Amino acid sequence: MALSQLGDRKDFIRQDIKRTKVLTVRQESTRQQRDWLATEEPLEIRVQGPGQEVVNIAVTMRTPGYDRELAVGFLYTEGLIRARDEVVAVEADEQRRDGRPCNIATVQLSHAFDPAPLKRNFYATSSCGICGKASLEQIAVHCPPVTAGPVVARAVLEDLPATLRHAQQIFDQTGGLHASGLFDIGGQLLSLREDVGRHNAVDKLIGQMVLAEQTPLTEHILLVSGRTSFEIMQKTAMAGIPIICAVSAPSSLAVEVARRFRMTLVGFLRDHNFNVYTHPERIALDR
Amino acid sequence: MALSQLGDRKDFIRQDIKRTKVLTVRQESTRQQRDWLATEEPLEIRVQGPGQEVVNIAVTMRTPGYDRELAVGFLYTEGLIRARDEVVAVEADEQRRDGRPCNIATVQLSHAFDPAPLKRNFYATSSCGICGKASLEQIAVHCPPVTAGPVVARAVLEDLPATLRHAQQIFDQTGGLHASGLFDIGGQLLSLREDVGRHNAVDKLIGQMVLAEQTPLTEHILLVSGRTSFEIMQKTAMAGIPIICAVSAPSSLAVEVARRFRMTLVGFLRDHNFNVYTHPERIALDR
Repeated sequence: MALSQLGDRKDFIRQDIKRTKVLTVRQESTRQQRDWLATEEPLEIRVQGPGQEVVNIAVTMRTPGYDRELAVGFLYTEGLIRARDEVVAVEADEQRRDGRPCNIATVQLSHAFDPAPLKRNFYATSSCGICGKASLEQIAVHCPPVTAGPVVARAVLEDLPATLRHAQQIFDQTGGLHASGLFDIGGQLLSLREDVGRHNAVDKLIGQMVLAEQTPLTEHILLVSGRTSFEIMQKTAMAGIPIICAVSAPSSLAVEVARRFRMTLVGFLRDHNFNVYTHPERIALDR
Repeated sequence: MALSQLGDRKDFIRQDIKRTKVLTVRQESTRQQRDWLATEEPLEIRVQGPGQEVVNIAVTMRTPGYDRELAVGFLYTEGLIRARDEVVAVEADEQRRDGRPCNIATVQLSHAFDPAPLKRNFYATSSCGICGKASLEQIAVHCPPVTAGPVVARAVLEDLPATLRHAQQIFDQTGGLHASGLFDIGGQLLSLREDVGRHNAVDKLIGQMVLAEQTPLTEHILLVSGRTSFEIMQKTAMAGIPIICAVSAPSSLAVEVARRFRMTLVGFLRDHNFNVYTHPERIALDR
């Protein structure tokens, strides 16, 4: 990814931040000043198979930018597509002539669209009828457990948050964005995506990799700036990512997804300390 | 609210946390130990009008507990009910005999259920078709701007985060929960709810107040532990809450909702400093 390249482009109109007036109240002074907000706008994701009508799949509240990647990533992590060659084209007018973003992304598919995976069935055979276990089974329909390798050095893990923060400082002037970083096993940052919705940041990353025909991401590490939930783990399991790290805590269902799909889940990765919730065999603690 | 009462009840089986094993990797030592996770489980929210079939409204990933309040709060903040007397009963078996939670909450309504508000229409008349402005219009269908009063002292605002954190320490042993606190204008904590989903924490609070016939919450302050987004502002606008505070940043659309519905939106409320994004007239800066 060309982080610096994008940052240098003077003609690039930033749609991911909006200027606002704010009254800053501090111990020493109170004053009116200008500030920046992370942009939040709805994006409607649509798909169309050959000769089919356009179908509206979802509306997500997202930060504009990388809408093509977001749409493709969403379809991939929801099990609606499995590979790059199913995508004929993605239409998303990220920059319209009047300077306002267009909030529709349409993915043209190479095959007829089957909406069945969207109608997620949370029902299990238990007397209760709905539970986390059923949610896990639903992922399993699309997704085998991730592969056994790779092994990452402890020192590499410990350095990831600083790398992510450093890269993020280029972009985030708002404090309002969730960041997701994709790293190789040596700890090199391959891509960074930010969004007001943490699931969108993950979908943008994965969508980028789908379009680059890099999936499944079997030799990669994902770091998220916040917590890990069912949704984040579902998406990363679909992409086959073996090692998921978070600066904060996982939920119970995040840990269950990690266990079920044999993913290494790391939490509270900060200040060179961390917790390993599942599959520590992918971390070399002595180096 | 009887925070301490609940904490003291030895027979209360905590469903909001789950025990796990974790490998803690620290500078000085690495060891296997027990830890607690915030529970995340799906909840299916159902409604039923007199003589009607049960309708499945939504599935939300939530932390078990206060499921009745969550279901009622969700219906209220989505514009499906407007007052307590529309709710005949709420069925939610929060504690089943085998110790597993039942993840269904069914709200019996006094009137026929109209699913129309659920089918949210993001389409506006603009050529683009979908935008944040249209999302705002959609709230406006259900919700007038909040009332002009009240006025809160700056010193009261500054103390809210410490009050919330203190109350939260009783419960959160996991680091994985979002907290929402409802305060009166004097800064007294009226209720605290926590959830893996921040929107659920707000729905639980608002649902509690709907069931207690306390809505609209025109003399109240809401503090959330994280950021403010469109979704949080939509829910609090529906409840008529005039002052919304957050420990972190608002999104652009959060500020737009606050402006449109004449709500006071405070961000980065920490260390006795804060930013006021909209309607500062509700804050007395000199006391």
